Amino acid sequence: MKLVTFTHRGSTRLGRLEGEEIVDLSGAALPATLLAVLEAGALEEASRLDGPRVELSAARLEAPIARPPKILAVGLNYADHVAETGRETPTLPIVFNKQSTSITGPFDPIHLPKASSQLDYEGELAFVIGRRCRHVPKARAHEVIAGYLVLNDVSVRDWQRRSPTMTMGKSFDTHCPLGPALVSVDEIGGSPAGLALRTLVNGELRQHSNTKELIFDGFEIVEHLSTAFTLEPGDVISTGTCGGVAGAMQPPRWLVAGDVVRVEIDGLGAIENTVVLEPDTQLL
Amino acid sequence: MKLVTFTHRGSTRLGRLEGEEIVDLSGAALPATLLAVLEAGALEEASRLDGPRVELSAARLEAPIARPPKILAVGLNYADHVAETGRETPTLPIVFNKQSTSITGPFDPIHLPKASSQLDYEGELAFVIGRRCRHVPKARAHEVIAGYLVLNDVSVRDWQRRSPTMTMGKSFDTHCPLGPALVSVDEIGGSPAGLALRTLVNGELRQHSNTKELIFDGFEIVEHLSTAFTLEPGDVISTGTCGGVAGAMQPPRWLVAGDVVRVEIDGLGAIENTVVLEPDTQLL
Repeated sequence: MKLVTFTHRGSTRLGRLEGEEIVDLSGAALPATLLAVLEAGALEEASRLDGPRVELSAARLEAPIARPPKILAVGLNYADHVAETGRETPTLPIVFNKQSTSITGPFDPIHLPKASSQLDYEGELAFVIGRRCRHVPKARAHEVIAGYLVLNDVSVRDWQRRSPTMTMGKSFDTHCPLGPALVSVDEIGGSPAGLALRTLVNGELRQHSNTKELIFDGFEIVEHLSTAFTLEPGDVISTGTCGGVAGAMQPPRWLVAGDVVRVEIDGLGAIENTVVLEPDTQLL
Repeated sequence: MKLVTFTHRGSTRLGRLEGEEIVDLSGAALPATLLAVLEAGALEEASRLDGPRVELSAARLEAPIARPPKILAVGLNYADHVAETGRETPTLPIVFNKQSTSITGPFDPIHLPKASSQLDYEGELAFVIGRRCRHVPKARAHEVIAGYLVLNDVSVRDWQRRSPTMTMGKSFDTHCPLGPALVSVDEIGGSPAGLALRTLVNGELRQHSNTKELIFDGFEIVEHLSTAFTLEPGDVISTGTCGGVAGAMQPPRWLVAGDVVRVEIDGLGAIENTVVLEPDTQLL
């Protein structure tokens, strides 16, 4: 099952992607948003209920979850990325947050911020929590994962590196595109390991790895996080990026306005975002 | 004005604290929660509408905002705390997140986690955002702050120090008690600077400073944060702690079960939390 949040004829709705069509679930006996479906534990109903069909080409896909309760990400979780940053291989997951305001759609623009020119991509496998949970051993972590998706952990490197916490450089508005769908585990052959991941900038392959190369896999991450705190339905957890980021090149090849960044993971689909100058707005 | 979230006779409601009474605003023409009042821009109405009176002593005060969209905190923001940690004085705010699941009430228990014995307190001045905003210059930051409150940035030091991001050690469940009320600026004489702050453990004074000692004040923090991302109504931002934390003592005097931690700030009131062993539960 692939669940999507889509906009069609001016309204944003929950749907199930089937080939080139979306089954519009907004009239079904289901909560209105994917987040609410997860909170209600209604994934099974979402997999079988029916509704009118909308052509995928006529719809705009949105972030599957507009405002996750948490967005957590893991740094330095592929050996080749650890090597290119010159850091040591971590013995525990290095965890940071992205702000919920950084979420944007799978095909929406990414802002090149006014505050920096060091804009970078990080193609990543992410997963979504489906059940409220705490103290989950890794052997049971699959029970609390609702599905998988593609996430670009867009990063502003100078802002990231000015502080050991990384927070500021990971959370600019529009810097967390994700989607295109929430994909259930059965759709990817029962395991999120062994999926090829590619990041392309203007069609040029920049990152190419496989989720089996993760230092800490999703199940280990769930165990680690839930030792400290409760995970909730809709929490988005991103597993980290592989080698090939712009900032590690000599010289760095930062993203500039007009660049098109595509992240694709076998079985999960692709997200593609164009870099635009941050609009000239002050919101006050 | 002091706005509270309180539970009385089994229901949790919005109220306005007036001396030893709470004006119950749940029947007034207002959104049901303080977060929703902030989102609706209805603070002025909350300040003047009337309702039945409830004795404060008969009510239980809850966290004013149960689930802030973001909880951000600043590290190393008082000179004496920087000195006791042996770090350098930062030239920019060091920002990290606490998870929204860490929120607990102003008089609720704090868990001594199963995963650590290095439990510490950090008494802090925090503020709440009242308006959606981005790119706010510090000279106008007062316009976006709805009010102030007391926050204990409870920290698990070994988990904090194992990673430069600090995330895991700052976000255990129950490790963000806050309250007792959201206090408007007029209540504290027009400025949050110059307020004495004290943290006591079992009645013993451990931290004693003044908000005028902050390296980066709330207005500078708002400017810094909003350069990168949008702030939203209900976002909680904590300004950092002063010297006197348990982990900096020789030897460290970690919190143990039964300890009572009280944080008080002149004009804002006090929160008081008892340390208990983390309950023996696995949520799965």
